[in-house]
Amino acid sequence: MSLLQDLVIASRTCAEHGVIDAYGHVSVRSETSPERYWMARAVAPELITEADLLEFDLDSNRIQDGGPAAYNERYIHGEIYKARPDVHAIVHNHSHAVVPFSCTGCRLRPIFHLAAFIGEGIPTWDIRDAQRGSDMLVRNSQLGQSLAQKLGSHPAALMRGHGSVVVGASLAIAVGRTIYLDHNAKMQLQAMQMQALQSPGQLDEVVYLDDAEVEALSWQAYVRSWDLWRTQWLPRLAAEAAQPQITSS
Amino acid sequence: MSLLQDLVIASRTCAEHGVIDAYGHVSVRSETSPERYWMARAVAPELITEADLLEFDLDSNRIQDGGPAAYNERYIHGEIYKARPDVHAIVHNHSHAVVPFSCTGCRLRPIFHLAAFIGEGIPTWDIRDAQRGSDMLVRNSQLGQSLAQKLGSHPAALMRGHGSVVVGASLAIAVGRTIYLDHNAKMQLQAMQMQALQSPGQLDEVVYLDDAEVEALSWQAYVRSWDLWRTQWLPRLAAEAAQPQITSS
Amino acid sequence: MSLLQDLVIASRTCAEHGVIDAYGHVSVRSETSPERYWMARAVAPELITEADLLEFDLDSNRIQDGGPAAYNERYIHGEIYKARPDVHAIVHNHSHAVVPFSCTGCRLRPIFHLAAFIGEGIPTWDIRDAQRGSDMLVRNSQLGQSLAQKLGSHPAALMRGHGSVVVGASLAIAVGRTIYLDHNAKMQLQAMQMQALQSPGQLDEVVYLDDAEVEALSWQAYVRSWDLWRTQWLPRLAAEAAQPQITSS
Amino acid sequence: MSLLQDLVIASRTCAEHGVIDAYGHVSVRSETSPERYWMARAVAPELITEADLLEFDLDSNRIQDGGPAAYNERYIHGEIYKARPDVHAIVHNHSHAVVPFSCTGCRLRPIFHLAAFIGEGIPTWDIRDAQRGSDMLVRNSQLGQSLAQKLGSHPAALMRGHGSVVVGASLAIAVGRTIYLDHNAKMQLQAMQMQALQSPGQLDEVVYLDDAEVEALSWQAYVRSWDLWRTQWLPRLAAEAAQPQITSS
Repeated sequence: MSLLQDLVIASRTCAEHGVIDAYGHVSVRSETSPERYWMARAVAPELITEADLLEFDLDSNRIQDGGPAAYNERYIHGEIYKARPDVHAIVHNHSHAVVPFSCTGCRLRPIFHLAAFIGEGIPTWDIRDAQRGSDMLVRNSQLGQSLAQKLGSHPAALMRGHGSVVVGASLAIAVGRTIYLDHNAKMQLQAMQMQALQSPGQLDEVVYLDDAEVEALSWQAYVRSWDLWRTQWLPRLAAEAAQPQITSS
Repeated sequence: MSLLQDLVIASRTCAEHGVIDAYGHVSVRSETSPERYWMARAVAPELITEADLLEFDLDSNRIQDGGPAAYNERYIHGEIYKARPDVHAIVHNHSHAVVPFSCTGCRLRPIFHLAAFIGEGIPTWDIRDAQRGSDMLVRNSQLGQSLAQKLGSHPAALMRGHGSVVVGASLAIAVGRTIYLDHNAKMQLQAMQMQALQSPGQLDEVVYLDDAEVEALSWQAYVRSWDLWRTQWLPRLAAEAAQPQITSS
Repeated sequence: MSLLQDLVIASRTCAEHGVIDAYGHVSVRSETSPERYWMARAVAPELITEADLLEFDLDSNRIQDGGPAAYNERYIHGEIYKARPDVHAIVHNHSHAVVPFSCTGCRLRPIFHLAAFIGEGIPTWDIRDAQRGSDMLVRNSQLGQSLAQKLGSHPAALMRGHGSVVVGASLAIAVGRTIYLDHNAKMQLQAMQMQALQSPGQLDEVVYLDDAEVEALSWQAYVRSWDLWRTQWLPRLAAEAAQPQITSS
Repeated sequence: MSLLQDLVIASRTCAEHGVIDAYGHVSVRSETSPERYWMARAVAPELITEADLLEFDLDSNRIQDGGPAAYNERYIHGEIYKARPDVHAIVHNHSHAVVPFSCTGCRLRPIFHLAAFIGEGIPTWDIRDAQRGSDMLVRNSQLGQSLAQKLGSHPAALMRGHGSVVVGASLAIAVGRTIYLDHNAKMQLQAMQMQALQSPGQLDEVVYLDDAEVEALSWQAYVRSWDLWRTQWLPRLAAEAAQPQITSS
């Protein structure tokens, strides 16, 4: 039950739930050196093993010289860890259900109890506000800082036309929030459609969790789901390790 | 073909059909002691084996002292068994298609013959009516009683922003109703969208099952689907039992 | 490559594509006795093997006395074979995407070339027109005749609040039409939604296949997809046959 | 890591992502003879192995006489290779999410950074403009030329009521674009629905990638996803090769 094994499981779990595909990444702050974090080399999350994990400082420089290429967007992670001492794990994901919220005037609101954290506010970061004509990637510290600033003290921030970044005090929380953000987005769109059919122009009548409920649910740490994912992945990772041909170039 | 084996199969089947994930739970009334019911310890339904099952009285106290933690929300089950002698199985689920019906003015109606029971009425329970500022969970007998009262003599009740509780005279019925409630919700939303496109403002022209059809279908016990699920799960459970590493912490 | 093996493959394929679940059934006219047809005993299609197949006359009486129970709705099949000498295979399915078309004023139209047959017309049968207060099932010859009459010379008929019946000159055609009817229904709903967003009130501007295109595509016999399904199912059926425990009660 | 092995992997990947089923096909320009291309015999992409691949000249005549039947629609490929020296791989697909864009007045626009290429323009080809009353298939050089002309210098063209053709400088690019075209179509529909709910009549307020962002993303070659797909398929293909019964008729 090591931190690096958990980082592998977090990556695989996000991929299996469809919130990241070949792109997107998960990181975790070092337990021994809080000024460092771990993240995989530039490889699809579905393929990550412990051997793919690299250590970075909070400027997103690699601790060990040489070796395989790192993700271009590692600055998302370094700059958030710098700005948010309470954050110990970060998921940068591409949930398809969430992207439409990032490019419309439509705000994510908590409709499902397991996504109550949305009530703490999910700002949207548009990279255009930091750099016009970019290739949409958070390729340097300045862009990472801009995103971290938009995130502020919130549990997540949408990235326009791209995805979102979700943070937490543990891998379980960051992954759980990522998956239920996706589920909430789907349910909220359906509820809005339904409400508009039932009572045109009365979109505000959808009943979301209220502030007191959001506050009362701040304890949610996704312990039972994390236990499920670990229990499912441990034997699969062991079986993969016994099949040496399943390795990426 | 024991009751406890069937409870395992019911839990796995609900998880496989996506109506419960790490959360949600299934229970069954004891065959020998109608003042008792069986439910798993606090573990994800996908992982449940017979060894995880615990016995409770109708106040949701455990019959055997000690052992692993129980679900916080077991009061849903105990209070409904107390109020409804006809109920022998209960599914508390989080179907994503059903949640939007719980927080909009849109009523579930029977559009598909295998979900005819919806015509018996599906009330919506809002926990706010019993407790303001809750964490949405049915954590005690009072909340369980409030939910059971809203359920009344109906086959199911929606829980606002949370999911639903579905009851039946057998595990087959409770599970079958849960799955077809989910399917009906999806079809009903599509029919409403279609009708609004075709004839704006004429939402009432969707043709639902009428009361006589609902009554004529009250025999539905989901025998064939239950036979399918048991037939599919028995060899899988046997294979799992032969792989001791697949166990939850 | 026997007819009965093909009937097993047709049943499994429909189940795997989600157009039938525990309910729904596929039949095929006898090659040697055109006044007879084959269909499984009352079991979920996912479980069917050749040992489950029964022979019926066109009044849907069993040729062999005794044995396991037959589907209550076998009259759908018998009455259509009686009325339609050109039909050699029938799928009664519960496609979720198709049901909403059966209970709204919205007509299925051919939007995708592999579902061109929809242009030949898909009438909707409401069992209420034959029997009020039914349990929605085609339980006898009279109801089967009513449905067959509504089907007329068309390739399929919707059954309100229930599903549809799809016919063809071969199992490949009946199964292929069933699956692409489902796909077309999904695409058509999306196209209607899109058109309404783009040009409110201009629903007629969706471009469907025209009559000449429908006619030009009447050769479609789904040969390549049938070859795919057979190729995929043959080794799976062989593997199942080697695992005697996977049998239904 | 041969070109033909990559063509097999490209075909399987498209099938696994649901953008082609039994129909649709992938081709690649010969590395040694740019006036030739490779494509499978007329078989479902899920079944293709290297033994199924045939070589064609740019008039879509087979280089080797005899042997199994070729796809009727190979002219799509030959005529595009003729017109576009920059194109080295082509996917003709049936993505269900994309078809509705082909038959409505609704234009695909880049909403997701991995589908930025959509900003280079995706024209729609209606076969009716070249031939009225066709069976929708690109059965000859004239139809292929008409489609190639509509495609022009764009990365893809929609085919009304049928699917699309997507091109690229490599198999990775053609396959990556095909899959993200499908994803973008789904997200765009949701964003349009959401925007219309939030601000009726303000559909233009959806924020798409702007021209500078599209230009800045022209480097996208889907290297990491292609590495993922190859890594996943190589052991599966090796396992299949060891099971000689999995072969198509």
